Amino acid sequence: MNYYPPSIRNLIRQIAKLPGIGEKTAERLALHLLHASRKDAELLARSIVEIRERTRLCAACHAWSDAELCPVCSDAGRDATVVCVVEQPADMIAIEKSGAYKGRYHILGGALSPLDGVGPHELRIDSLLEKIPRDRVVEVVLATGTNVEGEATAAYLAERLATLPVRVTRIASGVPMGGDLKYVDQVTLKRAMESRHAVRTA
Amino acid sequence: MNYYPPSIRNLIRQIAKLPGIGEKTAERLALHLLHASRKDAELLARSIVEIRERTRLCAACHAWSDAELCPVCSDAGRDATVVCVVEQPADMIAIEKSGAYKGRYHILGGALSPLDGVGPHELRIDSLLEKIPRDRVVEVVLATGTNVEGEATAAYLAERLATLPVRVTRIASGVPMGGDLKYVDQVTLKRAMESRHAVRTA
Repeated sequence: MNYYPPSIRNLIRQIAKLPGIGEKTAERLALHLLHASRKDAELLARSIVEIRERTRLCAACHAWSDAELCPVCSDAGRDATVVCVVEQPADMIAIEKSGAYKGRYHILGGALSPLDGVGPHELRIDSLLEKIPRDRVVEVVLATGTNVEGEATAAYLAERLATLPVRVTRIASGVPMGGDLKYVDQVTLKRAMESRHAVRTA
Repeated sequence: MNYYPPSIRNLIRQIAKLPGIGEKTAERLALHLLHASRKDAELLARSIVEIRERTRLCAACHAWSDAELCPVCSDAGRDATVVCVVEQPADMIAIEKSGAYKGRYHILGGALSPLDGVGPHELRIDSLLEKIPRDRVVEVVLATGTNVEGEATAAYLAERLATLPVRVTRIASGVPMGGDLKYVDQVTLKRAMESRHAVRTA
């Protein structure tokens, strides 16, 4: 590292702090930026600062947003009577990428995890419950993770929602698409077998 | 990409312009920067701008430098009477990392390549020739590449230096360390065979 003048050394060090970027890659990227056009380098630097200044959470669903409402909540074409509950904004992005969902979202901000000190009060559950009568929600899709915390959160929410006149569903678990059965773990296979559905009725 | 608000989308796009960074990685890095400490994000943004503002070429050897002279040229412990000639600043860094060299450098700024319009006048050859009497140089190590352009440049420099009272050497070519002979290309093996040296004299 001492082979470089301080400014280059400093940039390599900052880049190497990023996750999954080793020193070799940091070096390559720093030297690229040294030779990149001034415009590109400045655009990158500005975006890094702006993402923190501009991004806030959507007032309605708590997803990442530049404005009061996120792109999904401000889209009148999305069905507000169906709400998909996820743990984190990144989970919502993953579902959006699938293109399989046309309703709105509600981001809890995590999953129940007593060991980490996350109880119901640490999650955005009250605002979910308020949303149901207000937006005339007819279905809540529980799309928390399929790990212990996500399953516990889904079970807890199902119970809290039981008294409300709303259909509560859970995303399906099973063998991932393209999966070779012999490489699928036993818990997933057990779940896939239990959740089997009719393809043709005899 | 439209799943993200504009500020995040913009950062992903800027990061994905970097070499060897795909959209998936750009996404991961952008989300990391969204959650990183404000200090880290600002340090990174500032370094990207500063590297372009601060880095210039050393007045003596034309390596990357923050000051008038680069770390090597300003180091009194380095032997100024030995000059290693390389094509680019990155070549100098590679030699510095080997730790095998304690002299100074001279960066040509490229290699002779008539097809690309690079002739002797496009390279920093005059300042190399001037340096030899001024710094009382006793040895010039030709460390240009071992490709066609690098070899041609070394041959040309050897000829230009022939009239000066200086020893001219060339870095050795041969089988890379850790190399398995069966994977080494024929040109390298031919050169390694031609340049064989005695291990024990019979």
